Amino acid sequence: MKIDSVDFFYLSMPQVLDIGDGSQDALLVRVAAGEYVGWGECEAAPLVSIASLICPMSHSACKPVIASVLGQEINDIRDIRRIGDLVRANSLDLLQADHTLSGIDIALWDLLGRRRSEPVWKLLGYKSSFPKTPYASVLFGDTAQDTLIKAKAIAAQGFRAAKFGWGPFGLSTVENDCDQLAAAREGLGEDGILLIDAGTVWNADLAAARLRLNMLKEVRATWLEEPFVSGALSEYHALSKESGTVGMAGGEGCHNFHMAKHMVDYAGLKYVQIDAGRIGGITIAKDVADYAASKGVLYVNHTFTSNLALSASLQPYAGLESHTICEFPTELKSLARAMTKNHITPDENGLLHVPDAPGLGIEPDLQGIAPYLVDVQIQVRGQTLYCTPPLR
Amino acid sequence: MKIDSVDFFYLSMPQVLDIGDGSQDALLVRVAAGEYVGWGECEAAPLVSIASLICPMSHSACKPVIASVLGQEINDIRDIRRIGDLVRANSLDLLQADHTLSGIDIALWDLLGRRRSEPVWKLLGYKSSFPKTPYASVLFGDTAQDTLIKAKAIAAQGFRAAKFGWGPFGLSTVENDCDQLAAAREGLGEDGILLIDAGTVWNADLAAARLRLNMLKEVRATWLEEPFVSGALSEYHALSKESGTVGMAGGEGCHNFHMAKHMVDYAGLKYVQIDAGRIGGITIAKDVADYAASKGVLYVNHTFTSNLALSASLQPYAGLESHTICEFPTELKSLARAMTKNHITPDENGLLHVPDAPGLGIEPDLQGIAPYLVDVQIQVRGQTLYCTPPLR
Repeated sequence: MKIDSVDFFYLSMPQVLDIGDGSQDALLVRVAAGEYVGWGECEAAPLVSIASLICPMSHSACKPVIASVLGQEINDIRDIRRIGDLVRANSLDLLQADHTLSGIDIALWDLLGRRRSEPVWKLLGYKSSFPKTPYASVLFGDTAQDTLIKAKAIAAQGFRAAKFGWGPFGLSTVENDCDQLAAAREGLGEDGILLIDAGTVWNADLAAARLRLNMLKEVRATWLEEPFVSGALSEYHALSKESGTVGMAGGEGCHNFHMAKHMVDYAGLKYVQIDAGRIGGITIAKDVADYAASKGVLYVNHTFTSNLALSASLQPYAGLESHTICEFPTELKSLARAMTKNHITPDENGLLHVPDAPGLGIEPDLQGIAPYLVDVQIQVRGQTLYCTPPLR
Repeated sequence: MKIDSVDFFYLSMPQVLDIGDGSQDALLVRVAAGEYVGWGECEAAPLVSIASLICPMSHSACKPVIASVLGQEINDIRDIRRIGDLVRANSLDLLQADHTLSGIDIALWDLLGRRRSEPVWKLLGYKSSFPKTPYASVLFGDTAQDTLIKAKAIAAQGFRAAKFGWGPFGLSTVENDCDQLAAAREGLGEDGILLIDAGTVWNADLAAARLRLNMLKEVRATWLEEPFVSGALSEYHALSKESGTVGMAGGEGCHNFHMAKHMVDYAGLKYVQIDAGRIGGITIAKDVADYAASKGVLYVNHTFTSNLALSASLQPYAGLESHTICEFPTELKSLARAMTKNHITPDENGLLHVPDAPGLGIEPDLQGIAPYLVDVQIQVRGQTLYCTPPLR
């Protein structure tokens, strides 16, 4: 069968706040082929990804993403890789293309899984999926006191692990950061798995990161995530040499396999964190999971939007039994909750199970998201290249 | 003074052909501050870069590029770096942002150069600029015979160097590629500097590239450019070990300093090729030039559009005397020629001089480009976020 249509739906909260919360908007992707439909999601900047889907060609290696997708045969999982390779070649000079492809790749896996009545992780070659230990993924409070309250609430909900990130962390004094870290540990309790996300706040400033290392060891942080931007391989590596039991975590910024491979090869990572909605979809995320496993680096999903994106982020390492930690955003905006009819929630033991259902196992809620649909029109030379498709 | 306006002009040939010719469209950037104006250019996919300039914010690290530019103080070259750092932080999750920033950064250098009546290369700290040996940069002919004719014409024009790339090269048999290489050498003459650009045709397929290595040595190619995509560091490195006198060249795909640094550090490059219109502008390109020089790697400009982009691409290494080779596209479409009132041409000795004039030393031709201006409208929630500004 052939890919008949690719529809992008830009969804947003009525008001987007200037905070590090990625659940405030979303780009939902629907791909249809024959009688089958699959759903996916692209990470961040919906309008830009829409533009990259339908923009006029600049030259032979800078085509709109849709040119390599529409009309393509999709019968087999090898077709998904072939289509991705086409997009990467034909949109080589279109920087945004990796993000755009990601949502399409995810939707194609969902579509083939639905067609075969198998979960995506089985199509990926895993015989079984193993439960993950979800960490409640939240922003630091504005004050250490706020963080303490958040951490206590997370512990009270039964989470074994929590990640605190962004917010004021790294932006003011070392003392304030120490207070934040101590509050997080205190609230979570002595046994909780404490994860810290610096959100690239130090860019490539090794010295600034070093100043927080003692306190990170003192509060027994399991990892320090993104002290630096993804490309700062030598700075990551240098910090990893001094960080002792605090593992280096990073990789969410990677938008292709090579970038993630470089982080595994050169950055001294203990955990590589991949967003399937950015790196080129489930196909490339699985490549990274295989590579990380072969190098003794633990794979962790990155996700901060809907449960559709959560499921997509879990599939690539569902079958890796010893890669147990998973991101589980718990402060989602109403949009991200409304996007899907069903949700992934921890079981009575606090463990998260990758859906054992066809495709991604998540049903978009078209009625639920209708209030969040953003009307977009893009016209070039008087011709409408994109207008928001109807939700039905 | 403050940045008062940032205008993006999408220019295009009436018809864009499916060939590897980047001069078929352009995104011209105008930045105004006080009584001064500067001009820049972003590489490829104008509509997508426009969208990234003005898109609604997704979250605190995914803001439209313009949010970090408009209203900023611009008095000093340090302000340019500060603005770039702001864009990189505030648009961290907006993949296209590096391309978009590039044109703005270039325009800011032009603006400050005009204000101080100094060429950009002086603002960059160079005491003098040194002439470059331009290579005529053309596509392979469809047949070896076509390539022979092109190469003879280039030699007859007095060029000492020529680069042949893209077209059919690498796509069919090794024999056909050998014929193409032999034709290029024959047409150029025994003494010409012959450069070959594979245009990432082998992606990361080391074996496919290896099959062409003997012939590349036989025709005495000075470099083999982009056998692989920019991220394929280990494949580049492996090929460099066997390529003898044929130097590895690559880097045009880099969209930040780190990627270029990785290529210098790990890919076994002899030549690093940087497009100032992609990597984040002249600021980051100069960082790469400094780093490459410190590591014994030769810096080469990458450019394939107007003479404004050509000048921007030359500034970062204008003062590096021993880095002599420069790209000089000679098959520009009429749009790219019409974009500027003045042009950079080789002197009687066949050498190219970086303009010794304020800023980039290139004057956009607003009348000349008017026929190529593309009308664009982007509306979100019924509000026009972008419409093509008037050319005046």
